[in-house]
Amino acid sequence: MSRIINVAAAQLGPIQRSDSRRDVVERLLAHLRQAHAMGCQLVVFPELALTTFFPRWYMEDPAEIDAFYESEMPGPQTRVLFETARKLGIGFYLGYAELAVEQGVKRRFNTSILVNRNGEIIGKYRKVHLPGHAEHEPWRAFQHLEKHYFEPGESFDVWRGFGGVMGMALCNDRRWSETYRVMGLQGAEMILLGYNTPVHNPPAPEHDDLSMFHNHLVMQAGAYQNGTWVVGVAKAGKEEGCEMIGGSCIIAPSGEIVAACSTKGDELAIARCDLDLCLSYKSTTFNFDRHRRPEAYGLITERRGAVEPAPEVAVTA
Amino acid sequence: MSRIINVAAAQLGPIQRSDSRRDVVERLLAHLRQAHAMGCQLVVFPELALTTFFPRWYMEDPAEIDAFYESEMPGPQTRVLFETARKLGIGFYLGYAELAVEQGVKRRFNTSILVNRNGEIIGKYRKVHLPGHAEHEPWRAFQHLEKHYFEPGESFDVWRGFGGVMGMALCNDRRWSETYRVMGLQGAEMILLGYNTPVHNPPAPEHDDLSMFHNHLVMQAGAYQNGTWVVGVAKAGKEEGCEMIGGSCIIAPSGEIVAACSTKGDELAIARCDLDLCLSYKSTTFNFDRHRRPEAYGLITERRGAVEPAPEVAVTA
Repeated sequence: MSRIINVAAAQLGPIQRSDSRRDVVERLLAHLRQAHAMGCQLVVFPELALTTFFPRWYMEDPAEIDAFYESEMPGPQTRVLFETARKLGIGFYLGYAELAVEQGVKRRFNTSILVNRNGEIIGKYRKVHLPGHAEHEPWRAFQHLEKHYFEPGESFDVWRGFGGVMGMALCNDRRWSETYRVMGLQGAEMILLGYNTPVHNPPAPEHDDLSMFHNHLVMQAGAYQNGTWVVGVAKAGKEEGCEMIGGSCIIAPSGEIVAACSTKGDELAIARCDLDLCLSYKSTTFNFDRHRRPEAYGLITERRGAVEPAPEVAVTA
Repeated sequence: MSRIINVAAAQLGPIQRSDSRRDVVERLLAHLRQAHAMGCQLVVFPELALTTFFPRWYMEDPAEIDAFYESEMPGPQTRVLFETARKLGIGFYLGYAELAVEQGVKRRFNTSILVNRNGEIIGKYRKVHLPGHAEHEPWRAFQHLEKHYFEPGESFDVWRGFGGVMGMALCNDRRWSETYRVMGLQGAEMILLGYNTPVHNPPAPEHDDLSMFHNHLVMQAGAYQNGTWVVGVAKAGKEEGCEMIGGSCIIAPSGEIVAACSTKGDELAIARCDLDLCLSYKSTTFNFDRHRRPEAYGLITERRGAVEPAPEVAVTA
């Protein structure tokens, strides 16, 4: 049985604050239809794909904040995505702000879902690595308040779907090798990953020119080191005055970029992804069972921050 | 106080089996002198830098095998390296096959040492990730018997030296993100890494053309993701009929290659490495204490091999 999935990385251009959910969903539907017309079975949308990237603002009014979240999925405005998916027989990954009520408590997450070709949700992921800061920092050109607006998720999981083992991650997760490894250890063959990444990083503006290099570097390394496909999809372009990187791409288990967007707007990059290509990495160089040495990895789970060696063991060189 | 170290990646061309230790040490001395003349304080030599890469052969005669190992360091033929280092005030990293006798038992390791500018050993590392195989596999064009000739080392450590926090690794270690992370969690600012990498990988020849891409990808990602310098140094060229990749390079904490060799022979690549450049990564994007989520990383130490999700949780997409 063929294990080829035709995948579309469905980049979005900017979403302004004045754009309605309806406007945005219309753009997502256009992507679904175009991807279907080109023979795709899976469409990957960005992180927080239904609204502008609202963590760039510090807000205090609960109603103003709530307006950026989905309290049900599908909800009245997103149901058409699921219906269209089912009609076209095309699955999708979608990032959105999730407002959940669990045991009577309101909880907020930066979430993605995986929807199968029948329009059913088969997986949900809540972002583990929330970047940015929790308090208002007015010195910044813009805020990055993900630690303020979201609770962190608790695990990286995988789901059987589309003939293979699928993983999900979001944005900053891609910079952390642990993200890919935890899913690699569950046999992930394709990791779907939406992002919103400003070109300018206020705490380290000296690296702004490297933002695209870093974007690709971490996803390519994560793919190769785990023998998995990675599909990285941006919300790009000038959003509310903030320039966001594009660079959406599909990366093979070799680490090679095999499809890429070249604009900052709504754009599809498409690839025929053979899940069996994972095997020649997973069974050789990255045969984890033969070659990993968890006995030597203890600090990765024992320690959160770095601890430098004590000065007393110093030897002057 | 300046934290700039001038570093030379001292690539070696091939070492044939007929080359004596004396021949090889002469080449290492030439590198030390040239690097010193160019103002370097640290020279990084390859893995197993004193002999040909002998794990390419299956051997049974203990005397034949022993001839590739050092039973003392410095030994009669290597002492001159330490004396020259002290005289020139230049430190070095050197990979070699170590024959140790511990509690009356002969033990064999693929080892590297870090020698300070006084010619004193300040650190020793024994390779954790031994690649290849343990049994003779005659179907291969050449063997890669590291699992046969060496015991694995047990930990990734760092040492204070050269004004910073120095780590060491060897060859296949560089493909594993855990290598860099365990040292990053100990504050590593520069990771020294020698390698011997055949272009041809008998179990997966379909990727031979990507060997240099993979070589750089993993080291660049490891540098960026931990905000550390990485110095990767090859033994390169056609050794006993086996083509080995070159590509020795010095990588900044940004992940950028800032110096590189372009031949397959004895060659120096030199860079002025400012250890303070680590800070703008270690204190922002890769501020581990702020952003890492070890609660979600459990599988990395709990599990050696990959375990796929049970078929019973499958949902058809």
